[in-house]
Amino acid sequence: MKPLLLTMGDAAGIGPEILVGAFLRGEAAGCVVIGDPAVMRRAAALRREGAAMIAVIEHPADLPEVPPGCLPVLVPPGLPEGLATLPWGRIAAPCGAAAARCIEAAVRLLRAGEAAALVTAPIHKEALSAAGVGYPGHTEMLQALAADGDELPPVRMMLANDELRVVLATIHVSLRRAIELLDFDGVLDTIRIAHRAGVAAGVAKPRIAVAGLNPHAGEGGLFGDEEQRFIAPAVLAARAEGMDASGPYAPDTVFMRARNAPAHPGEFDMVVAMTHDHGLIPVKYLGVETGVNVTLGLPFVRTSPDHGTAFDIAGRGSADPASLTAAIRMARRLSGVG
Amino acid sequence: MKPLLLTMGDAAGIGPEILVGAFLRGEAAGCVVIGDPAVMRRAAALRREGAAMIAVIEHPADLPEVPPGCLPVLVPPGLPEGLATLPWGRIAAPCGAAAARCIEAAVRLLRAGEAAALVTAPIHKEALSAAGVGYPGHTEMLQALAADGDELPPVRMMLANDELRVVLATIHVSLRRAIELLDFDGVLDTIRIAHRAGVAAGVAKPRIAVAGLNPHAGEGGLFGDEEQRFIAPAVLAARAEGMDASGPYAPDTVFMRARNAPAHPGEFDMVVAMTHDHGLIPVKYLGVETGVNVTLGLPFVRTSPDHGTAFDIAGRGSADPASLTAAIRMARRLSGVG
Repeated sequence: MKPLLLTMGDAAGIGPEILVGAFLRGEAAGCVVIGDPAVMRRAAALRREGAAMIAVIEHPADLPEVPPGCLPVLVPPGLPEGLATLPWGRIAAPCGAAAARCIEAAVRLLRAGEAAALVTAPIHKEALSAAGVGYPGHTEMLQALAADGDELPPVRMMLANDELRVVLATIHVSLRRAIELLDFDGVLDTIRIAHRAGVAAGVAKPRIAVAGLNPHAGEGGLFGDEEQRFIAPAVLAARAEGMDASGPYAPDTVFMRARNAPAHPGEFDMVVAMTHDHGLIPVKYLGVETGVNVTLGLPFVRTSPDHGTAFDIAGRGSADPASLTAAIRMARRLSGVG
Repeated sequence: MKPLLLTMGDAAGIGPEILVGAFLRGEAAGCVVIGDPAVMRRAAALRREGAAMIAVIEHPADLPEVPPGCLPVLVPPGLPEGLATLPWGRIAAPCGAAAARCIEAAVRLLRAGEAAALVTAPIHKEALSAAGVGYPGHTEMLQALAADGDELPPVRMMLANDELRVVLATIHVSLRRAIELLDFDGVLDTIRIAHRAGVAAGVAKPRIAVAGLNPHAGEGGLFGDEEQRFIAPAVLAARAEGMDASGPYAPDTVFMRARNAPAHPGEFDMVVAMTHDHGLIPVKYLGVETGVNVTLGLPFVRTSPDHGTAFDIAGRGSADPASLTAAIRMARRLSGVG
């Protein structure tokens, strides 16, 4: 069985310590960390659950030779020196560069068919930027690396927890720019990608609610015309292709209607949201502990916890690995290795 | 004790039946409905709790003479004829005109000091528009009526439930227009209005979280500059005036942090949100039953349920008056009559 790859994330954030935490809880069997052994050793020393030994391996196929109780770490080429001497919780260019090297190495292994799926620990966008890495986040970087110079595959971010699955039409741009970027093709692509993900997750005909952009979904055109110009037409086009899409619905109530909780069955299987925060506010409202970020549309499965580097608590050993372990479980499920 | 005024709302929506429902549950003591007696009679015949008699009065001061078990209704001037013969659940210009006449009459009584506070049942914005009423919603209409030709008082919408109190910097405009309208003065005014409301509600120095506009509150300028240009400066100005404002925070996690629930004390007393849906998505996520809409900044207290006309279920007698009764209770509390 091919291993899952876990990238270390920003060395100054909580990524290394939640990876160790997941490993110590027995949630990372069959996983290989792509990262810096010294950083992982520093993180292993923090955890209250006990220490973890680090075993450096050269190749994912070496995983079966790692002794029990040892956390396997594969070192990517080009890692900066001295990462483990940098302070916790600070933006540092070497941490941004290291995070990028780990992701690049992981994608090479995935494209070569040597790993089953990718789970990424949090990176810090300002550290990436300080290192001259020209991507605002994981999703855009993975998209470019997966394309490898060819046309970029259309990808979308899905956020999922026990109650909601939300697919975003736009993500890491200003709200002003997001409105400019939205169009018929982008919304229809988002519905198609959501539909395929729902089918892959075992729902034959997922019920996809499409949220509007404007208050009250434009209130019949009084508060904006994006719904009439291209969101409603994209919903109709998706229906003509046989998908169970509906909307556009008022953003402020569609998530409540989709919420799937005990004694509150959701009306929909997924929601397509027009903007980053329309989609993420409801997913995170009840806590980020079990939220999982899934990148849809890549040639491999990729999940991640839906929290950030948490610089304010990094280095204390108190960070909760629950969202990471949820991401590992979802990556296993979606890639068929568990 | 001065009465509370309850406007009927759109005659084709659930407003009349939830007013009757609140009355039959004993939640509307000391209240006078401003509306059409025939519409209220039609609604009274729907409720499963039993029938209510309608008593038409001429003036709020006549309330003590209304017999027990009778729902007092005051008829505003200029009401269209035949409202009770119009179908439930349809947009109709006469319903929009009637809703406006009720609100106008209520404001006249409040400005004359003859009533303590206003609770408004839902109106339909397209019906208002069909009637040629040039306001997109209650808030804008009340603001203009309260000003009576003078400079408009700065008002803001607050949405409150058991877990959250959210004050909105912009409301019923397209998202594109909302971004254009936001500026330093608007954000600072919103923080000041939120602060005064918190003080009026008994919190000496309310902790006010100010949400950003852009993903990750702009991520240090990478995803938009509104945070740096005027939101952060407005927070600093509010602090210089002695208010406990902080932020701007990432919109996707600030509501989770402010959420005040059993075993989850909120970090803040109120959140200032930049857009209608950033603020309303979290307030409505767990259900609209107990949400209350409060207009801050008017010369009188005004609350309303935070749901709409619900045309899809109007006329069945099944609409839940819980949000309306929560609005009545909050109006009593804020106006000191209960």
